[in-house]
Amino acid sequence: MECEDSKKGIMEATYKALCKHGYADLSIEKISRECDKGKSLIYYHFDSKRDLMQSFLEYLIDEVERIIDEMKDYNREEQLDRLLDAGLAVDDEMWNFRKALFEIRSQAPYREGFAEKLGRIEGLMERHLCEILRDMEIDGPDRKARVLISAMEGTVSRRLSSGNRKDIGKEKDLLKEVVINGS
Amino acid sequence: MECEDSKKGIMEATYKALCKHGYADLSIEKISRECDKGKSLIYYHFDSKRDLMQSFLEYLIDEVERIIDEMKDYNREEQLDRLLDAGLAVDDEMWNFRKALFEIRSQAPYREGFAEKLGRIEGLMERHLCEILRDMEIDGPDRKARVLISAMEGTVSRRLSSGNRKDIGKEKDLLKEVVINGS
Repeated sequence: MECEDSKKGIMEATYKALCKHGYADLSIEKISRECDKGKSLIYYHFDSKRDLMQSFLEYLIDEVERIIDEMKDYNREEQLDRLLDAGLAVDDEMWNFRKALFEIRSQAPYREGFAEKLGRIEGLMERHLCEILRDMEIDGPDRKARVLISAMEGTVSRRLSSGNRKDIGKEKDLLKEVVINGS
Repeated sequence: MECEDSKKGIMEATYKALCKHGYADLSIEKISRECDKGKSLIYYHFDSKRDLMQSFLEYLIDEVERIIDEMKDYNREEQLDRLLDAGLAVDDEMWNFRKALFEIRSQAPYREGFAEKLGRIEGLMERHLCEILRDMEIDGPDRKARVLISAMEGTVSRRLSSGNRKDIGKEKDLLKEVVINGS
């Protein structure tokens, strides 16, 4: 990977390193291996792993905003499916990334700034989900969006801790049935 | 606290130490401070913190079984309330304990045996919840119990990571409305 646009390059390298190694084992060394400019460039921009993580979470907020914006070309049903797939970490890369994010979340009570940024990401997803449900004329879209975000978070954390991804797609149908259709 | 019945005493001391210090900072030293018999007794029973945690999770499974069994004296509505209060960590002690359990869960992908035991605890709660909903003649009690367990887990982990417990009782009403009554 090239690190031409250096800060963005470091963020992309951090994402890749998190997917590969998780958060506890993440190091500037490992991030630099995903990025051809090396450690000195990373230290030029960031003082520590903690400092870099704060910027990474900011970068993630922008990415989620961008992805939600791009989703708006699809119809509401497709948007709902894509959002639930993302929330349930259905694809491989997303699964590895959520594993790292799960570790980051468990550190949030002890690291200033982490919780506020994770909360903003969830807020963006919750608001978008609420808009989709409202457009689909589902009753109580705000309450249902809130429960869906929590249910997806809980489903993924239960699956992640057991390492069991089997039929994770079926969880989507379950959430649609129980939470969205109330049946 | 007295450690007459030594193994049970160590488990109770571990519970108290986890509530006070969390999992990452837990040490045999800190557990022994909650128990008047001291470190040597703990080392007599357990080789390491990891070994002790395996027994602690087994002890927790027995405790959950015992609590569910005791609940059966109450009517179904009361049982439901108690189970949701427990699942949402509404009281102070439970909140601190869930904070530690959240850390333990984040370690589960890397510690053999943790996930299987956490899964058994969730399984006990899910089955009991399903029985309660069935007795209350709620449609799809198994599917709803499954979603409720995940939604409680996700709600608590979102709250724990942000340290925000405000109005956590309202989450119970939200889950009852959206998941149980489908409205």
